[in-house]
Amino acid sequence: MADSNTIRLRVFSLNCWGIRYLSKHCRERYAMIGELLSREEHDIVLLQEVWSEKDFLCLKRKLSSTHPHSHYFKSGVIGSGMATFSRHRIHDAFLYRYSLNGYPYMAHHGDWFGGKAVGMVILNIGSLAAHVYITHLHAEYSREKDSYLPHRVVQAWELQQFIRHTSSGADLVILAGDLNLHPQDLGNRLLRTYTGLRDSYTETAKFDGCEDGITLIADNPFINPKELCPFEKGIRIDYILYKGSGRVSIQCESLSTTKGSVPDHPFPYSDHEALSAELQLQTLTQQAGGDETRGDQDCAAGKLAELVDIVTEARTEVKVGLYCAERMRYTAARTGVMGLALLLLELAIAAVPWLGADQPFPRASFYLLGVLCFAILITTFLLYIFYTMEVKSLQGAEDQMRLAVGSLQERLRRFPLAQPLNPLCRPPDRQDPCPLEPEE
Amino acid sequence: MADSNTIRLRVFSLNCWGIRYLSKHCRERYAMIGELLSREEHDIVLLQEVWSEKDFLCLKRKLSSTHPHSHYFKSGVIGSGMATFSRHRIHDAFLYRYSLNGYPYMAHHGDWFGGKAVGMVILNIGSLAAHVYITHLHAEYSREKDSYLPHRVVQAWELQQFIRHTSSGADLVILAGDLNLHPQDLGNRLLRTYTGLRDSYTETAKFDGCEDGITLIADNPFINPKELCPFEKGIRIDYILYKGSGRVSIQCESLSTTKGSVPDHPFPYSDHEALSAELQLQTLTQQAGGDETRGDQDCAAGKLAELVDIVTEARTEVKVGLYCAERMRYTAARTGVMGLALLLLELAIAAVPWLGADQPFPRASFYLLGVLCFAILITTFLLYIFYTMEVKSLQGAEDQMRLAVGSLQERLRRFPLAQPLNPLCRPPDRQDPCPLEPEE
Repeated sequence: MADSNTIRLRVFSLNCWGIRYLSKHCRERYAMIGELLSREEHDIVLLQEVWSEKDFLCLKRKLSSTHPHSHYFKSGVIGSGMATFSRHRIHDAFLYRYSLNGYPYMAHHGDWFGGKAVGMVILNIGSLAAHVYITHLHAEYSREKDSYLPHRVVQAWELQQFIRHTSSGADLVILAGDLNLHPQDLGNRLLRTYTGLRDSYTETAKFDGCEDGITLIADNPFINPKELCPFEKGIRIDYILYKGSGRVSIQCESLSTTKGSVPDHPFPYSDHEALSAELQLQTLTQQAGGDETRGDQDCAAGKLAELVDIVTEARTEVKVGLYCAERMRYTAARTGVMGLALLLLELAIAAVPWLGADQPFPRASFYLLGVLCFAILITTFLLYIFYTMEVKSLQGAEDQMRLAVGSLQERLRRFPLAQPLNPLCRPPDRQDPCPLEPEE
Repeated sequence: MADSNTIRLRVFSLNCWGIRYLSKHCRERYAMIGELLSREEHDIVLLQEVWSEKDFLCLKRKLSSTHPHSHYFKSGVIGSGMATFSRHRIHDAFLYRYSLNGYPYMAHHGDWFGGKAVGMVILNIGSLAAHVYITHLHAEYSREKDSYLPHRVVQAWELQQFIRHTSSGADLVILAGDLNLHPQDLGNRLLRTYTGLRDSYTETAKFDGCEDGITLIADNPFINPKELCPFEKGIRIDYILYKGSGRVSIQCESLSTTKGSVPDHPFPYSDHEALSAELQLQTLTQQAGGDETRGDQDCAAGKLAELVDIVTEARTEVKVGLYCAERMRYTAARTGVMGLALLLLELAIAAVPWLGADQPFPRASFYLLGVLCFAILITTFLLYIFYTMEVKSLQGAEDQMRLAVGSLQERLRRFPLAQPLNPLCRPPDRQDPCPLEPEE
């Protein structure tokens, strides 16, 4: 395992909060972000919430000399908001839209209109193929009563599936973005354990940033501290994750975040803090592996057992979501039937005068009631279709999870176990311990 | 390149036309299909248009002894209709929903409600990892005036992207399904050239089926021959495609299709013909490659040049679709504004009596006109949102195609060319000639 070559790679990630005319100081902040990026010259820049393509194009012009390669991912009604800039040529881009992403009628939350997705760009760093992923998951508006939890769990599930299945040929994998997940949240554990991605914050020895690595901090002037409750200081929901391969070993040399203010500027870059990681890639001339020890086996078995638990937990969460979605669909159907019954009743009553009754149906009430019935019918019909799609997506995710658990359990049975499992072992001197590829 | 092991793999594909209560003899045909499958015991069965989950579960029960492993892909409002049965254990399943799939208001075509997608299952055949894909693209309702062409091209684009990016770790790749594409259609060329997948019909020496391999034949009693016009005998739109890898060489030993009737039965299995391919897998003990000749280089360069042409053609088609979608969105917006203007005008006229005019606005007309205006506003608003999503998806696909062309052209420039390109060379004695992987 001799090292022939060491490459330094700097990665930047920021949720820009770039809603034109609504986000505070949007234009000025984009100018600041552009200045920062041209000055710092990171290798890879991954931005979220660049909602307007005009702002992307403006940044692209500004960074044309430092970051000649870029890609803007389009999706949904507004767009995915995800943009990437690179000093290395981008060879390929691919987008996966999450099957679930909130509700269109929750327009004030706006997530549905954003068309949340995970984008992948493939670029070559020297002779290495880097698969770089960017994503932004559905926001959490209330930690206590989080009605979007099943959607976010399904998004995390689809995210790990997408990364796992599209990164087989990669020498290195990088994922950055606003996951809207705390470090120990179900979706985060699912993602990290299944893909083997490592968190630059926990892996680096040199961290410079806010306490506990938080990226949504109470001190940020754009943040309403009440919304962070019960986390007084803030939360960590933005990440740079990475993993190497048999050809490349990666170490996170340092990670830094902004701290809520920018020197010589009256306000920060965004409501989120920016992350900047320095990764060191070491190409391995000799492929590791082949001499698997008993300790490695125990570790892999432990990881598998942990994964079974996590996927089972996710499945439970999806089932809860499925129950809610089916109930909502039932409510929509029942309301629709009531609207139809009301309409028929009205028509029957209105028909009575022609049959010889004395008092005619008041014309104004007749029309108003008719309009109401039609509005109910159309709305419930659209909702019924929407909830049916939600049910199908949740059922699909649950089916896939059931399949995954079965497959993991079968692999687990193949391990000759004499000792209790050690689910958290991680040898510190080995790259990507116990990767859980479809078939090892 | 010694062969150590030869495996025989039988693959079956059929579009079942399984719309409960609408498709003719649906129940009886499913019984026939179930009988056929339990009798034939194919290794992998890939069915499309199994629209009802009940029918899938019924088949699953029937095939529980011959095909113990199965997966049903759920998507959209009705479902994706795609089901797979396997004699080999399915380890993983993943679904990619196409970003474009017709229009919800074209309810009589129904494609939008089906949630068209490509499904992948990973299974182990001996020690080999097989990535098996199943798909069903948007139907072509008129060859002369095909308004869905841009959607189908984008679906073919996303299909090839999905297969290319998720099959890096595969030893063998199989794709089967109803592509709704003729052999030389743009989408088909895009798919085959980019992925390197080979068509079992053109590759096999032993074919038993309808003339020219057609799978939608005029002789089928469920087909209206007028719909096939101008192709009197029929068209070939169902496929079994495959490719090997450095570890496995694949040959298609034989391919057969049904011929519109089933012995001892009054009607055929479906309106489509069923395909049955026998593949021979040969595991290679020694990896090929490394001794690239000038001829290989020319071939790869030729393939790249061909691919550039095809992607450029696809880009043009997507641009046409983009133009249409933008025009439709503009029409929706204009109609919406007219509806709003009409509503305001009506309110103004209705307000006149209160201002002292003689003739009041007739009440019935007032309400009817108001309802009409509201209906226009809601419909155009929904259409505007829908067309915006269509525009974004088309723009996204076009961006990715532009990126791909740039990357292909750059790779092409690296070839030292002295002779004119030979775009169609294919050495007959080599497996998967000139594969166009992201980076060779």
